[in-house]
Amino acid sequence: MLTIDIHTHILPKNWPNLKEKYGYGGWIHLDHHKCGCARMMKEDHFFREIDANCWDAKVRMKECDQHKIDVQVLSTVPVMFSYWAKAADALDISKLLNDHIAGICDTHSSRFAGLGTIPLQSPDLAIKELERCVNELGLSGVQIGSHVNDWNLNAPELFAVFEAAQDLGASVFVHPWDMMGTDKMKDYWLPWLVGMPAETSLAMCSMIFGGVFERLPDLKVAFAHGGGSFPSTIGRIEHGFDCRPDLVAKDNDINPREYLNKIYLDTLVHDAPMLNYLIELMGADRLALGTDYPFPLGELQPGKLIHETITDNKIKQRLLNGTALEWLGLNKERFIK
Amino acid sequence: MLTIDIHTHILPKNWPNLKEKYGYGGWIHLDHHKCGCARMMKEDHFFREIDANCWDAKVRMKECDQHKIDVQVLSTVPVMFSYWAKAADALDISKLLNDHIAGICDTHSSRFAGLGTIPLQSPDLAIKELERCVNELGLSGVQIGSHVNDWNLNAPELFAVFEAAQDLGASVFVHPWDMMGTDKMKDYWLPWLVGMPAETSLAMCSMIFGGVFERLPDLKVAFAHGGGSFPSTIGRIEHGFDCRPDLVAKDNDINPREYLNKIYLDTLVHDAPMLNYLIELMGADRLALGTDYPFPLGELQPGKLIHETITDNKIKQRLLNGTALEWLGLNKERFIK
Repeated sequence: MLTIDIHTHILPKNWPNLKEKYGYGGWIHLDHHKCGCARMMKEDHFFREIDANCWDAKVRMKECDQHKIDVQVLSTVPVMFSYWAKAADALDISKLLNDHIAGICDTHSSRFAGLGTIPLQSPDLAIKELERCVNELGLSGVQIGSHVNDWNLNAPELFAVFEAAQDLGASVFVHPWDMMGTDKMKDYWLPWLVGMPAETSLAMCSMIFGGVFERLPDLKVAFAHGGGSFPSTIGRIEHGFDCRPDLVAKDNDINPREYLNKIYLDTLVHDAPMLNYLIELMGADRLALGTDYPFPLGELQPGKLIHETITDNKIKQRLLNGTALEWLGLNKERFIK
Repeated sequence: MLTIDIHTHILPKNWPNLKEKYGYGGWIHLDHHKCGCARMMKEDHFFREIDANCWDAKVRMKECDQHKIDVQVLSTVPVMFSYWAKAADALDISKLLNDHIAGICDTHSSRFAGLGTIPLQSPDLAIKELERCVNELGLSGVQIGSHVNDWNLNAPELFAVFEAAQDLGASVFVHPWDMMGTDKMKDYWLPWLVGMPAETSLAMCSMIFGGVFERLPDLKVAFAHGGGSFPSTIGRIEHGFDCRPDLVAKDNDINPREYLNKIYLDTLVHDAPMLNYLIELMGADRLALGTDYPFPLGELQPGKLIHETITDNKIKQRLLNGTALEWLGLNKERFIK
């Protein structure tokens, strides 16, 4: 059965020294300290150890073969969003990352599809790069963060970007980043375990209550990590909407549950009962395999949860490829050799 | 069937002017602007409108009768924790609030049980007031916040408080407050809808990974709002523990799932599938009716979700009274007229 993983991250093996290029610090670079391993460094500060599967398409394809993954949807690592930087510089590094992803998708078009990154701190530049991603590079859409500096995703400034995505038929993948509460969660990796699920819920609530989905009914947005804490707190969120419409329904008076069949989620929940809960809540039509490959907090045996949890072949087919193809706007034929 | 609501809030109708009493601002007071209604005010800033059911035991008992709630467990409103204040002043206001709750429990001992509040910014004073609550006032334990200023609940400073609670057989109820991300969530009541579930998960992760439950096996802690986002992200949390023990397991190497049958949650999830998920995950023995009465984000028809969702009488009995009695350390006979 054709298997597509909509949530994987990739970096180029090398890129220019951005501090020298742009004239100020705060950028990530790779320190290839030994063969097949690199340290992601933010200036002199260690951020994350990565392996060759983070940059080498051949290693990725080999690992995909091992796990029977036919297609990976490539996107950058969220720390590269660079929303904090000068917009022109964020555009510049976005172009470099997008060209890199597009190159891999061109070379191995039956194994990879791609999502770009765009400098959302400047909606005008972001729209131009979104158009280039889709029209010139052949990418399926873009990955964006759960918020953009002080803007949540309902910010009026961002609406034109979503409108452009709808017009282009571009897929949008929302990934948590720059997690709330990080300064108070020094221990136990809590920004990743507690902050990220909250960030994704923040993004979903912001787009729903801000009326983004209501005003753009054909916008195709998928959220990472099974929607974080949103699906399990939909009862609380809906009740908040019902009991305090003055606070919650002020920009959109449609019940948030109505959007459960308009958005997409990946399946990265690491738990069979939770996957079944998502299927019950949303329907398999809204869910697509996503693994966060190649990072350790991802599904280390991509596809295993679905294969072990789902017995119904029709549901399995939706989770493994049907929803992904619909969201990406791609035909199965591209990926079948 | 005896029905106990472990999660309700109460305030005195009046209390002294705390700014005058303590000599600095930041305190809550009530503005009884019309009969049966009051505004909770923080200095001149409106915080929340409340009704007589927030302070009047007779109104509460009448509403309980309407909803077939036999017993309410009373606790203060989290904004009264006063962890930010000088410890001696927080102790003083805590005593006032605790004496008020104890008075109501004494007068109507078959209808109310009580939890105190303690000045956790000073663990020594907090322990003394905890002892007074249990030994002198006859309260069942205390309600505490999901964090205490810059301390999460794994802070070494707080351990002696939990140890004292275990020694006293005191129940501890953890309620989210001072929500992470509040400064970035101006719209749509998001600190309550997104921040609170994250705060509760922060509290649970901190106590589990900090080894509090491991070192205090008889400590009885219940968490509000069905444990917030923790139960639905247990797969992610466990996977983080498995894949990065260097970060997550550094203070306690026991799998977080092991604590699911050692902690208690209230049932305030506003959603039948989520209640069923909790029962499947934790067992009914860990779950007790809680409604957040009398606030609008609570269950406005207390007990309705359980009555409509649960058909098995044994499970219903655990949710409506068995778990509550066990957690509170109280006998059924106290409440049966």
